[in-house]
Amino acid sequence: MLSEHKLAAQAPFPAPALGEPYLLTPGPLTTSYAVKQAMLRDWGSWDGDFRAMTSEMRQRLLAMLGDGNGEFDCVPMQGSGSFAVEAMLGSFVPRDGKALVLVNGAYGQRIVQTLGYLGRDHVAIDKGDYMPPRGDEVAAALDADPAITHVILVHCETSSGILNPVAEISETVYAKGRKFLVDSMSAFGAIPLEVGDVRYEAMVSSANKCIEGVPGFGFIIARKSELEAAKGRSHSLSLDVHAQWAHMNKTGQWRYTPPTHVVAAFLEALRQHEVEGGVAGRGARYTRNRDVMVSGMRELGFETLLKDRWLSPIIVTFFNPAHPDFSFDRFYELMKEKGFIIYPGKLTVVDSFRVGCIGRMDEHVMRKVVEAAGQSLREMGVDTAAPPAAAIAERAKLAA
Amino acid sequence: MLSEHKLAAQAPFPAPALGEPYLLTPGPLTTSYAVKQAMLRDWGSWDGDFRAMTSEMRQRLLAMLGDGNGEFDCVPMQGSGSFAVEAMLGSFVPRDGKALVLVNGAYGQRIVQTLGYLGRDHVAIDKGDYMPPRGDEVAAALDADPAITHVILVHCETSSGILNPVAEISETVYAKGRKFLVDSMSAFGAIPLEVGDVRYEAMVSSANKCIEGVPGFGFIIARKSELEAAKGRSHSLSLDVHAQWAHMNKTGQWRYTPPTHVVAAFLEALRQHEVEGGVAGRGARYTRNRDVMVSGMRELGFETLLKDRWLSPIIVTFFNPAHPDFSFDRFYELMKEKGFIIYPGKLTVVDSFRVGCIGRMDEHVMRKVVEAAGQSLREMGVDTAAPPAAAIAERAKLAA
Repeated sequence: MLSEHKLAAQAPFPAPALGEPYLLTPGPLTTSYAVKQAMLRDWGSWDGDFRAMTSEMRQRLLAMLGDGNGEFDCVPMQGSGSFAVEAMLGSFVPRDGKALVLVNGAYGQRIVQTLGYLGRDHVAIDKGDYMPPRGDEVAAALDADPAITHVILVHCETSSGILNPVAEISETVYAKGRKFLVDSMSAFGAIPLEVGDVRYEAMVSSANKCIEGVPGFGFIIARKSELEAAKGRSHSLSLDVHAQWAHMNKTGQWRYTPPTHVVAAFLEALRQHEVEGGVAGRGARYTRNRDVMVSGMRELGFETLLKDRWLSPIIVTFFNPAHPDFSFDRFYELMKEKGFIIYPGKLTVVDSFRVGCIGRMDEHVMRKVVEAAGQSLREMGVDTAAPPAAAIAERAKLAA
Repeated sequence: MLSEHKLAAQAPFPAPALGEPYLLTPGPLTTSYAVKQAMLRDWGSWDGDFRAMTSEMRQRLLAMLGDGNGEFDCVPMQGSGSFAVEAMLGSFVPRDGKALVLVNGAYGQRIVQTLGYLGRDHVAIDKGDYMPPRGDEVAAALDADPAITHVILVHCETSSGILNPVAEISETVYAKGRKFLVDSMSAFGAIPLEVGDVRYEAMVSSANKCIEGVPGFGFIIARKSELEAAKGRSHSLSLDVHAQWAHMNKTGQWRYTPPTHVVAAFLEALRQHEVEGGVAGRGARYTRNRDVMVSGMRELGFETLLKDRWLSPIIVTFFNPAHPDFSFDRFYELMKEKGFIIYPGKLTVVDSFRVGCIGRMDEHVMRKVVEAAGQSLREMGVDTAAPPAAAIAERAKLAA
């Protein structure tokens, strides 16, 4: 339909079918056609064929961990990623435990909110919209409060796109004799989280992020000793990780109806992930996506929120151009007309928008994204290369 | 592939694609190809196109209620049906309330278990494997315990296949000044539950039952006054019905990532449901499915657990033939070879199996099911028309 699509079709990752737009969003994202085609049949959830699919899925996820000793197991959980995060918190933070949550965006805040619902004692270090938590401040907080048993970090906080220093925090946590839980929702599958490199008790991710499946369930990967210890802890029958794990290992089935089609799609996505070279291959493509896109957007005059060091290859936040004729809603619609769905910003103090680097697309597509952004700016009459002086002064204040 | 499939393909409901078996199960079930094809693209969950799909879905569900005064609203909830049941219980039974659960199978027992997790006070009337709860015993229980605020019933208990007397119970509950919650998971969409006929505060069902979508979410339909009153009640952030409702009505979006593809499939299923004549049309087809299947199975010598009065058009439980050469596992595999997935029994005191009547199939398919069952019996060397005398005696004892 659009010239952007025709050009993109020459790339190794063809345009989505039906002229549908690319999703430059942190999941749901653009998946391959083969992933979606895997949903074109029905399975009985009790049947052996589907049990074999569940088993293969769990094994493939565990294989990404480098867990040579078999100390971890994988527990899929129905619902969105937030359901899996809540399941992890309710199952691994004991009722008499206390959590320290490292917050620098909406997903860290959601963890705090969840612990409130669960009645689990907790404190937070809130770094605001985009500053990373650092080991020394975590160490000080743990020294100051011996009651803290667990530290919880969002691996990639998609509110800003920051890649948090997971290894640094893990070292601090275990040096202080506490336990570490990781929300790697938007990072797992593209950013290494091998248990030999980063120590943790449990992590959580979902089907519709870097493994490029469709949304419908998440999964918890946890140390078996923690899974055993979680018995009887959960606040929720549905979200009880121990019960799901025990039932699945005993019967090969999910406790309650699994999203069979979503599981089939995810299994195909996992096979494609392996073909691409696993976590390393997937991460390399996303990194190239980010580099091509960020460099092009900067040439157009857009500024990233974060310095390069903290930019994830998952999603990047850009400041709205400080030009009176720029409107995000209009920019969104102009980009959508050109075949690209971008994402609104989630910062509390400054207007911004986000562009994802994940999903079934490559650097050729990202060049088209940049072209579309430039064209959209021209259609809005916005010259980002020469922002008004007042805006420059305001930007300088924010950076100070 | 199989002759059964070739013959079934002449019926108005063609055989599933790829030679896959029919699912004679209470959901996941066999869906139409068009429902699955609706999943062949990706949507941004924040985008207007998807918000419009969510809105249409909610409106179509509400339209089945006959709620002329607009007193009810529909809240979809990620996860399996059990997640939606738990969400309903945690949101509508107040923390200082007390529930009376009417149990006659696994799904009633699961409600009791859920209330235990939630710390909500509750009692149960447990009728065993298949006896229906009746109005008089419910009235007596409510008279005896003024602390009871809510009564909860499973509409169709698929453990046995019994269709519980929902109108009779509702009348009793409101005559005694209490509130009624209905788990209509496997019945809604095929068995009427109009608010003018049966009074209730909230009910719950899911995407992959009588509306013939694929699994991945459920939905709660509740009186708006109850939705308002539910604020702050839930034990779970993810399963907070009030919060999901308020957010969805404010933004048009789901609070957390929706299963976009499953929603798209469900919307197509809802359109097909309307084309078939809505609840009445769907219910008529399932009733015919049941009648053809039960009558054929009885001719083969199989006996139903329930008397005709309590047989639902959803799923039917049959006793295993009392013949030494009958083995369910073997029968299951023989039926699967012939293109039909049946379901194991869930009774506690007697061996049984179940055959579903729901999903994208009609009486022509059900005749093939009966033929396949007869052929499977012959292959096992089981003559059900002449069970051994010992088995007859045992059966007589059970019926006493």
